[in-house]
Amino acid sequence: MDTTPPLHPAITRLLSMPPVQAMQLRLSGFDGEMLGLSAPLAPNVNDKGSAFGGSLASVMTLAAWALMSIRLEDAGNCAEVYVQDSSVRYLTPLYGDLHAIARLAEGQTWSEVLAAFAARGKARALMEVEMRDAAGTLCCTLAGRFVALAPRR
Amino acid sequence: MDTTPPLHPAITRLLSMPPVQAMQLRLSGFDGEMLGLSAPLAPNVNDKGSAFGGSLASVMTLAAWALMSIRLEDAGNCAEVYVQDSSVRYLTPLYGDLHAIARLAEGQTWSEVLAAFAARGKARALMEVEMRDAAGTLCCTLAGRFVALAPRR
Repeated sequence: MDTTPPLHPAITRLLSMPPVQAMQLRLSGFDGEMLGLSAPLAPNVNDKGSAFGGSLASVMTLAAWALMSIRLEDAGNCAEVYVQDSSVRYLTPLYGDLHAIARLAEGQTWSEVLAAFAARGKARALMEVEMRDAAGTLCCTLAGRFVALAPRR
Repeated sequence: MDTTPPLHPAITRLLSMPPVQAMQLRLSGFDGEMLGLSAPLAPNVNDKGSAFGGSLASVMTLAAWALMSIRLEDAGNCAEVYVQDSSVRYLTPLYGDLHAIARLAEGQTWSEVLAAFAARGKARALMEVEMRDAAGTLCCTLAGRFVALAPRR
Protein backbone atom coordinates (compact mmCIF):
# COMPACT_ATOMS: atom_id res chain seq x y z
CA MET A 1 0.00 0.00 0.00
CA ASP A 2 2.83 2.39 -0.80
CA THR A 3 1.60 4.29 -3.78
CA THR A 4 -1.39 6.54 -4.21
CA PRO A 5 -2.17 6.98 -7.89
CA PRO A 6 -3.92 9.93 -9.48
CA LEU A 7 -7.69 9.65 -8.99
CA HIS A 8 -9.40 7.05 -11.10
CA PRO A 9 -12.77 7.90 -12.69
CA ALA A 10 -14.42 5.44 -10.28
CA ILE A 11 -12.95 7.28 -7.29
CA THR A 12 -14.00 10.65 -8.69
CA ARG A 13 -17.55 9.35 -9.07
CA LEU A 14 -17.52 7.88 -5.60
CA LEU A 15 -16.30 11.09 -3.99
CA SER A 16 -19.03 13.08 -5.75
CA MET A 17 -21.88 11.26 -3.95
CA PRO A 18 -23.46 13.44 -1.21
CA PRO A 19 -23.43 10.69 1.46
CA VAL A 20 -19.76 9.96 0.71
CA GLN A 21 -18.89 13.65 0.97
CA ALA A 22 -20.61 13.71 4.37
CA MET A 23 -18.33 10.87 5.53
CA GLN A 24 -15.23 12.78 4.31
CA LEU A 25 -13.95 9.65 2.60
CA ARG A 26 -10.57 9.53 0.85
CA LEU A 27 -8.50 6.98 -1.02
CA SER A 28 -5.62 5.95 1.21
CA GLY A 29 -3.90 3.31 -0.87
CA PHE A 30 -4.02 1.05 -3.88
CA ASP A 31 -1.45 -1.48 -5.02
CA GLY A 32 -3.47 -3.50 -7.51
CA GLU A 33 -4.45 -6.20 -5.02
CA MET A 34 -5.53 -4.11 -2.04
CA LEU A 35 -7.40 -0.84 -1.88
CA GLY A 36 -7.67 1.35 1.20
CA LEU A 37 -10.28 3.96 2.03
CA SER A 38 -10.13 6.18 5.09
CA ALA A 39 -12.41 8.64 6.86
CA PRO A 40 -12.02 10.75 10.00
CA LEU A 41 -13.97 9.80 13.11
CA ALA A 42 -15.66 13.17 13.71
CA PRO A 43 -18.26 13.09 10.90
CA ASN A 44 -18.79 9.36 11.52
CA VAL A 45 -19.13 9.25 15.31
CA ASN A 46 -22.07 7.72 17.17
CA ASP A 47 -23.60 8.58 20.53
CA LYS A 48 -20.99 6.44 22.34
CA GLY A 49 -17.96 8.25 20.93
CA SER A 50 -17.02 5.37 18.63
CA ALA A 51 -17.47 4.97 14.89
CA PHE A 52 -21.08 4.68 13.73
CA GLY A 53 -21.88 1.17 12.46
CA GLY A 54 -23.47 2.53 9.30
CA SER A 55 -20.28 4.40 8.43
CA LEU A 56 -18.19 1.29 9.08
CA ALA A 57 -20.41 -0.75 6.75
CA SER A 58 -20.48 2.03 4.14
CA VAL A 59 -16.71 2.54 4.05
CA MET A 60 -16.08 -1.21 3.83
CA THR A 61 -18.66 -1.63 1.06
CA LEU A 62 -17.19 1.29 -0.89
CA ALA A 63 -13.63 -0.03 -0.56
CA ALA A 64 -14.64 -3.29 -2.22
CA TRP A 65 -16.72 -1.44 -4.81
CA ALA A 66 -13.80 0.87 -5.62
CA LEU A 67 -11.29 -1.97 -5.93
CA MET A 68 -13.45 -3.88 -8.39
CA SER A 69 -14.31 -0.71 -10.34
CA ILE A 70 -10.67 0.31 -10.67
CA ARG A 71 -9.46 -3.14 -11.68
CA LEU A 72 -12.04 -3.19 -14.47
CA GLU A 73 -11.25 0.39 -15.54
CA ASP A 74 -7.51 -0.25 -15.54
CA ALA A 75 -8.10 -3.16 -17.92
CA GLY A 76 -9.87 -0.79 -20.32
CA ASN A 77 -13.45 -1.79 -19.47
CA CYS A 78 -16.51 0.35 -19.04
CA ALA A 79 -18.44 -1.32 -16.23
CA GLU A 80 -21.02 -0.61 -13.56
CA VAL A 81 -20.25 -2.38 -10.29
CA TYR A 82 -23.06 -3.25 -7.86
CA VAL A 83 -23.07 -4.88 -4.44
CA GLN A 84 -25.46 -7.84 -4.34
CA ASP A 85 -25.24 -8.85 -0.72
CA SER A 86 -22.90 -8.49 2.20
CA SER A 87 -22.31 -9.76 5.70
CA VAL A 88 -20.78 -7.49 8.31
CA ARG A 89 -19.37 -8.50 11.69
CA TYR A 90 -18.91 -5.78 14.30
CA LEU A 91 -16.24 -7.15 16.63
CA THR A 92 -15.20 -4.28 18.86
CA PRO A 93 -15.89 -0.53 18.89
CA LEU A 94 -13.51 1.65 16.89
CA TYR A 95 -12.46 4.80 18.76
CA GLY A 96 -10.52 6.49 16.00
CA ASP A 97 -10.38 7.19 12.30
CA LEU A 98 -11.76 4.64 9.87
CA HIS A 99 -9.37 2.69 7.63
CA ALA A 100 -10.78 -0.09 5.46
CA ILE A 101 -8.73 -2.43 3.29
CA ALA A 102 -10.44 -4.46 0.57
CA ARG A 103 -9.21 -7.41 -1.44
CA LEU A 104 -10.55 -10.38 -3.40
CA ALA A 105 -11.57 -13.32 -1.24
CA GLU A 106 -9.25 -16.30 -1.34
CA GLY A 107 -9.52 -18.64 -4.29
CA GLN A 108 -10.20 -15.94 -6.87
CA THR A 109 -7.91 -13.91 -9.11
CA TRP A 110 -8.41 -10.67 -10.97
CA SER A 111 -7.30 -12.47 -14.14
CA GLU A 112 -10.35 -14.72 -13.85
CA VAL A 113 -12.69 -11.84 -13.07
CA LEU A 114 -11.42 -9.81 -16.01
CA ALA A 115 -11.59 -12.82 -18.35
CA ALA A 116 -15.22 -13.42 -17.33
CA PHE A 117 -16.09 -9.78 -17.98
CA ALA A 118 -14.36 -9.82 -21.37
CA ALA A 119 -16.20 -12.98 -22.39
CA ARG A 120 -19.71 -12.18 -21.15
CA GLY A 121 -19.87 -8.49 -20.23
CA LYS A 122 -20.56 -9.62 -16.68
CA ALA A 123 -18.39 -10.76 -13.81
CA ARG A 124 -18.88 -11.60 -10.16
CA ALA A 125 -16.40 -11.35 -7.32
CA LEU A 126 -16.48 -12.22 -3.67
CA MET A 127 -14.64 -9.50 -1.79
CA GLU A 128 -13.35 -9.23 1.75
CA VAL A 129 -12.78 -6.04 3.70
CA GLU A 130 -11.42 -5.44 7.14
CA MET A 131 -11.02 -2.45 9.39
CA ARG A 132 -8.41 -2.26 12.17
CA ASP A 133 -7.73 0.41 14.76
CA ALA A 134 -4.39 2.19 15.20
CA ALA A 135 -3.15 -0.64 17.45
CA GLY A 136 -3.94 -3.22 14.77
CA THR A 137 -6.99 -4.71 16.50
CA LEU A 138 -9.56 -6.03 14.06
CA CYS A 139 -12.74 -4.00 14.61
CA CYS A 140 -15.06 -5.15 11.82
CA THR A 141 -15.14 -7.21 8.67
CA LEU A 142 -17.27 -7.39 5.55
CA ALA A 143 -17.70 -10.18 3.04
CA GLY A 144 -19.72 -9.25 0.00
CA ARG A 145 -20.67 -10.40 -3.46
CA PHE A 146 -20.25 -7.81 -6.18
CA VAL A 147 -21.22 -7.90 -9.83
CA ALA A 148 -19.88 -5.86 -12.72
CA LEU A 149 -22.05 -5.28 -15.77
CA ALA A 150 -21.25 -3.72 -19.11
CA PRO A 151 -23.49 -0.69 -19.76
CA ARG A 152 -26.63 -1.37 -21.82
CA ARG A 153 -26.23 -0.14 -25.36
CA MET B 1 -47.93 2.22 11.72
CA ASP B 2 -50.54 4.86 12.49
CA THR B 3 -49.12 6.70 15.44
CA THR B 4 -45.98 8.74 15.79
CA PRO B 5 -45.14 9.18 19.47
CA PRO B 6 -43.16 12.01 20.99
CA LEU B 7 -39.44 11.42 20.53
CA HIS B 8 -37.94 8.75 22.73
CA PRO B 9 -34.52 9.33 24.29
CA ALA B 10 -33.09 6.68 21.94
CA ILE B 11 -34.40 8.55 18.91
CA THR B 12 -33.07 11.85 20.22
CA ARG B 13 -29.62 10.27 20.65
CA LEU B 14 -29.79 8.71 17.21
CA LEU B 15 -30.72 11.97 15.51
CA SER B 16 -27.83 13.75 17.21
CA MET B 17 -25.15 11.65 15.48
CA PRO B 18 -23.41 13.62 12.68
CA PRO B 19 -23.67 10.80 10.08
CA VAL B 20 -27.37 10.42 10.86
CA GLN B 21 -27.93 14.16 10.49
CA ALA B 22 -26.21 13.99 7.11
CA MET B 23 -28.72 11.33 6.02
CA GLN B 24 -31.66 13.53 7.19
CA LEU B 25 -33.21 10.58 8.96
CA ARG B 26 -36.57 10.79 10.72
CA LEU B 27 -38.86 8.48 12.65
CA SER B 28 -41.84 7.66 10.43
CA GLY B 29 -43.78 5.24 12.58
CA PHE B 30 -43.85 3.04 15.67
CA ASP B 31 -46.65 0.79 16.86
CA GLY B 32 -44.81 -1.35 19.40
CA GLU B 33 -44.06 -4.19 16.98
CA MET B 34 -42.80 -2.27 13.95
CA LEU B 35 -40.65 0.83 13.70
CA GLY B 36 -40.20 2.89 10.57
CA LEU B 37 -37.35 5.24 9.67
CA SER B 38 -37.31 7.39 6.57
CA ALA B 39 -34.83 9.59 4.74
CA PRO B 40 -35.03 11.64 1.54
CA LEU B 41 -33.18 10.46 -1.55
CA ALA B 42 -31.19 13.65 -2.24
CA PRO B 43 -28.60 13.39 0.59
CA ASN B 44 -28.41 9.61 0.06
CA VAL B 45 -28.08 9.39 -3.71
CA ASN B 46 -25.29 7.56 -5.53
CA ASP B 47 -23.70 8.20 -8.92
CA LYS B 48 -26.48 6.25 -10.67
CA GLY B 49 -29.34 8.35 -9.29
CA SER B 50 -30.53 5.62 -6.93
CA ALA B 51 -30.12 5.28 -3.19
CA PHE B 52 -26.55 4.70 -2.01
CA GLY B 53 -26.07 1.18 -0.65
CA GLY B 54 -24.35 2.46 2.46
CA SER B 55 -27.36 4.63 3.29
CA LEU B 56 -29.72 1.71 2.71
CA ALA B 57 -27.69 -0.45 5.09
CA SER B 58 -27.38 2.36 7.63
CA VAL B 59 -31.09 3.22 7.70
CA MET B 60 -32.05 -0.45 8.02
CA THR B 61 -29.51 -1.03 10.81
CA LEU B 62 -30.71 2.05 12.67
CA ALA B 63 -34.37 1.05 12.37
CA ALA B 64 -33.66 -2.24 14.12
CA TRP B 65 -31.41 -0.52 16.68
CA ALA B 66 -34.12 2.06 17.42
CA LEU B 67 -36.87 -0.52 17.80
CA MET B 68 -34.88 -2.57 20.30
CA SER B 69 -33.76 0.57 22.17
CA ILE B 70 -37.30 1.92 22.46
CA ARG B 71 -38.79 -1.39 23.56
CA LEU B 72 -36.23 -1.60 26.37
CA GLU B 73 -36.71 2.07 27.34
CA ASP B 74 -40.49 1.77 27.35
CA ALA B 75 -40.16 -1.12 29.80
CA GLY B 76 -38.19 1.15 32.14
CA ASN B 77 -34.71 -0.18 31.34
CA CYS B 78 -31.47 1.66 30.84
CA ALA B 79 -29.70 -0.24 28.08
CA GLU B 80 -27.08 0.18 25.40
CA VAL B 81 -27.96 -1.59 22.17
CA TYR B 82 -25.26 -2.78 19.77
CA VAL B 83 -25.38 -4.50 16.40
CA GLN B 84 -23.27 -7.65 16.38
CA ASP B 85 -23.58 -8.75 12.78
CA SER B 86 -25.89 -8.24 9.85
CA SER B 87 -26.58 -9.55 6.39
CA VAL B 88 -27.91 -7.25 3.72
CA ARG B 89 -29.41 -8.21 0.38
CA TYR B 90 -29.64 -5.54 -2.31
CA LEU B 91 -32.42 -6.74 -4.60
CA THR B 92 -33.20 -3.84 -6.93
CA PRO B 93 -32.17 -0.17 -7.05
CA LEU B 94 -34.36 2.26 -5.11
CA TYR B 95 -35.12 5.46 -7.06
CA GLY B 96 -36.91 7.38 -4.34
CA ASP B 97 -36.98 8.19 -0.67
CA LEU B 98 -35.83 5.59 1.84
CA HIS B 99 -38.38 3.92 4.11
CA ALA B 100 -37.22 1.07 6.36
CA ILE B 101 -39.48 -1.02 8.59
CA ALA B 102 -37.94 -3.12 11.36
CA ARG B 103 -39.45 -5.90 13.47
CA LEU B 104 -38.35 -8.91 15.49
CA ALA B 105 -37.59 -11.98 13.41
CA GLU B 106 -40.17 -14.74 13.57
CA GLY B 107 -40.10 -17.03 16.57
CA GLN B 108 -39.18 -14.33 19.10
CA THR B 109 -41.29 -12.06 21.27
CA TRP B 110 -40.49 -8.83 23.05
CA SER B 111 -41.77 -10.43 26.26
CA GLU B 112 -38.93 -12.96 26.04
CA VAL B 113 -36.35 -10.31 25.18
CA LEU B 114 -37.43 -8.09 28.08
CA ALA B 115 -37.52 -11.03 30.48
CA ALA B 116 -33.97 -11.99 29.51
CA PHE B 117 -32.78 -8.42 30.05
CA ALA B 118 -34.50 -8.21 33.44
CA ALA B 119 -32.94 -11.49 34.56
CA ARG B 120 -29.38 -11.03 33.29
CA GLY B 121 -28.90 -7.39 32.27
CA LYS B 122 -28.30 -8.67 28.75
CA ALA B 123 -30.56 -9.70 25.90
CA ARG B 124 -30.16 -10.67 22.29
CA ALA B 125 -32.60 -10.28 19.44
CA LEU B 126 -32.61 -11.26 15.80
CA MET B 127 -34.20 -8.43 13.87
CA GLU B 128 -35.46 -8.15 10.30
CA VAL B 129 -35.75 -4.98 8.27
CA GLU B 130 -37.05 -4.35 4.82
CA MET B 131 -37.20 -1.40 2.48
CA ARG B 132 -39.77 -1.05 -0.29
CA ASP B 133 -40.21 1.59 -2.96
CA ALA B 134 -43.38 3.67 -3.46
CA ALA B 135 -44.88 0.89 -5.62
CA GLY B 136 -44.31 -1.69 -2.88
CA THR B 137 -41.41 -3.48 -4.57
CA LEU B 138 -38.96 -4.97 -2.09
CA CYS B 139 -35.61 -3.23 -2.68
CA CYS B 140 -33.41 -4.50 0.14
CA THR B 141 -33.51 -6.49 3.35
CA LEU B 142 -31.40 -6.76 6.46
CA ALA B 143 -31.22 -9.52 9.05
CA GLY B 144 -29.12 -8.68 12.07
CA ARG B 145 -28.27 -9.82 15.57
CA PHE B 146 -28.46 -7.11 18.20
CA VAL B 147 -27.49 -7.21 21.86
CA ALA B 148 -28.66 -4.98 24.71
CA LEU B 149 -26.43 -4.50 27.72
CA ALA B 150 -27.12 -2.80 31.02
CA PRO B 151 -24.61 0.04 31.61
CA ARG B 152 -21.59 -0.88 33.72
CA ARG B 153 -21.89 0.45 37.24
